[in-house]
Amino acid sequence: MSEPRLVEVRKNVLKQNDLLARALRTRFHESGVFVVSMVSSPGSGKTALLEKTLTMMRPSYRVAALVGDLATENDAMRLARSGAPVKQITTGTLCHLEAVMVEKALEDWNVDEFDFLFIENVGNLVCPSSYDLGEDLRLVLMSVTEGEDKPLKYPTIFNSADVAVVTKMDLAEAVEFDWTAAYQNIQAVRPGMEVFRVSAKTGEGMNEYLQALGRRAGKTALAQ
Amino acid sequence: MSEPRLVEVRKNVLKQNDLLARALRTRFHESGVFVVSMVSSPGSGKTALLEKTLTMMRPSYRVAALVGDLATENDAMRLARSGAPVKQITTGTLCHLEAVMVEKALEDWNVDEFDFLFIENVGNLVCPSSYDLGEDLRLVLMSVTEGEDKPLKYPTIFNSADVAVVTKMDLAEAVEFDWTAAYQNIQAVRPGMEVFRVSAKTGEGMNEYLQALGRRAGKTALAQ
Repeated sequence: MSEPRLVEVRKNVLKQNDLLARALRTRFHESGVFVVSMVSSPGSGKTALLEKTLTMMRPSYRVAALVGDLATENDAMRLARSGAPVKQITTGTLCHLEAVMVEKALEDWNVDEFDFLFIENVGNLVCPSSYDLGEDLRLVLMSVTEGEDKPLKYPTIFNSADVAVVTKMDLAEAVEFDWTAAYQNIQAVRPGMEVFRVSAKTGEGMNEYLQALGRRAGKTALAQ
Repeated sequence: MSEPRLVEVRKNVLKQNDLLARALRTRFHESGVFVVSMVSSPGSGKTALLEKTLTMMRPSYRVAALVGDLATENDAMRLARSGAPVKQITTGTLCHLEAVMVEKALEDWNVDEFDFLFIENVGNLVCPSSYDLGEDLRLVLMSVTEGEDKPLKYPTIFNSADVAVVTKMDLAEAVEFDWTAAYQNIQAVRPGMEVFRVSAKTGEGMNEYLQALGRRAGKTALAQ
């Protein structure tokens, strides 16, 4: 069995990633940019929420986004409609972003010019959990259509996140979404975790969610 | 950068997996059991479709299921309601099933006694693609709520699968699901792939899908 050796090599990759992530975090803090990463299952609505977020924040803040996918530039094109600077990172067959990809994507951007930088990870509830990207805040999204048990089934990703966002609230009734069960499952895995309910489609819950981002960032224009 | 070494070690793990998967496949063929694996994003409805499948097939066939998850035995308990033998495989932090886990889970089962064995993989659109489990048929599921672009964004998993199943058709109208776009995206990635549309909730499309399974297995009770 080569499994133990594989695990060891993975640990080395992670260690390198952690060092680089730490350097990125220092750079972000010095630049005064607040960095928010987003993780979720594919199809949970990360891009829809991010597009709405960029559009709603732009009048008050300088916002930008990096977006990771295995293939296609679709998300970057979609997000560009918000008018914010957006860059696609394609990972090939890799199921997560790594700090080195973030560093490379930022090479020709001056992060001093941003108040908020969003990083949308590859859609995956497993791989991204162990890769620090230097972010200040990690959001984990789950849509009402996925089932209330996701936190119990993917505890590591919920544990590695700071805030949970329940998306596609406009479909809650159609799928008989059980908010109490979902909330309890999140709290069982990550006690005290703040949870927001939003619909990027109808705008439900967006103000509260954006105000919380402003509070967390210590940037008060959104917190009013 | 230790990346090339990591890739090499991964290749060795895969090679071991392929050898074991080949042995499993031979054993399955000799036993006359047709093995179907299911891959999809978390929350695409694998367990719901599998429960419906087991329930509908049981009057005609001897069916059983293995179900993979990082944590919890929830799915096995849910599937047990069908009355079919079901076993949970918990993978810890691993984002896919491997052939060795299937072999181990089958240790105290006599596969000769089954006509169909279903293997529900961990919810993930990336990791499971390269791990052969010895199955005869690999289904990739995508729900109407995930967005029509998933095949383009996760081409490898669609390429590694034999049949695509679009799930949660009962929500198609609510999410304005674009069947033509979804179908074209699947065909762009995997030309000629057979695609079914089902709702485990309403039963829509289930007969056609089950008949196709029967045809593929060369077991005609379902193909009538």
